[in-house]
Amino acid sequence: MEGADPIRRLVHAFSRLPGIGEKTASRLTFFVMDADEAVARDLAEALLDLRSRVHLCPICCNLTDRELCNVCSDPRRDRRVVCVVESVPGLMAIERTGAFHGTYHVLHGVLAPLEGVGPEQLHMRELVARLKDGVEELIVATNTSIEGEATALYLSKLATPLGIHVTRIASGVPMGADLEYADQVTLARALAGRHSL
Amino acid sequence: MEGADPIRRLVHAFSRLPGIGEKTASRLTFFVMDADEAVARDLAEALLDLRSRVHLCPICCNLTDRELCNVCSDPRRDRRVVCVVESVPGLMAIERTGAFHGTYHVLHGVLAPLEGVGPEQLHMRELVARLKDGVEELIVATNTSIEGEATALYLSKLATPLGIHVTRIASGVPMGADLEYADQVTLARALAGRHSL
Repeated sequence: MEGADPIRRLVHAFSRLPGIGEKTASRLTFFVMDADEAVARDLAEALLDLRSRVHLCPICCNLTDRELCNVCSDPRRDRRVVCVVESVPGLMAIERTGAFHGTYHVLHGVLAPLEGVGPEQLHMRELVARLKDGVEELIVATNTSIEGEATALYLSKLATPLGIHVTRIASGVPMGADLEYADQVTLARALAGRHSL
Repeated sequence: MEGADPIRRLVHAFSRLPGIGEKTASRLTFFVMDADEAVARDLAEALLDLRSRVHLCPICCNLTDRELCNVCSDPRRDRRVVCVVESVPGLMAIERTGAFHGTYHVLHGVLAPLEGVGPEQLHMRELVARLKDGVEELIVATNTSIEGEATALYLSKLATPLGIHVTRIASGVPMGADLEYADQVTLARALAGRHSL
């Protein structure tokens, strides 16, 4: 019987979010209670808005609230180069580098046969439809996990026969990292991927 | 130009909460996007509900969505003992111990003259009104900060002349703590507050 029902309800709703436990949820609830009313209202409206207005871009499966996403609707982006990512946060991470001027394709997952995720469960069909449309290079930027690597291999077998150059983002020691703390697999990759200076 | 507008809007709304930075806000947003629609809807409704339905209990200034709060409406609670706390989370912390059967009074702050917080800025008036109503003991459970101590002293000067026994919660070394890591003030308090075994 701690506090009023609407308080417990909000604590519960907050604690369903990842990384937010009961204590943090309680702290957030009392913050919202004490803060300007706009804080609660803006958050509530943004939550409702997100689910009602955002959908997948029909070309690349990025999230958007318009007909096409920001990237696909930009005429300056190079449609001959398609970078395949697992998720929208991955896409955003690449966009933040400012170093990529092609377009994307978001799979919304990776192949994981043991968990029942095959090509049909991913947005692979939309990708295949695009491949015949003047794509010259497919950069596979899935995560460097086992599933990410398997997905890269799958995409390579899919696109290479169509005359598309399939590449994989480099993996190695992160910038600024100490070799001493790099794991063996990363270090082995960094060695294998060495290049002349 | 990262992502759709409703996404950026929700990231922004989340990042206004305490302890939630841009990265966490982004992670929460994509979680909400991928999760069951009920997660977003429940959180949104709980937020709106909180601000519209919750108000202060007219007796003790605890938060409630009914006429009186859970504690004040419970006939089993001892109205002769009033525990003064700074905030509702403080009240909840004491409730969780299950060791207190009196009632509360929530000040919603502490005296801080340098920040312009005097007795008029706190819910002191409601407390004074209660003191003449059969209160025998006033337990001051404000935090053990300078302001909390000053508020305790103020309450003591206010209630003692009315024949009320004013007490302060004990301060000392927390249970399970190592003396080596206790700060000097806490340790000095623990020594001064020693009792026979």
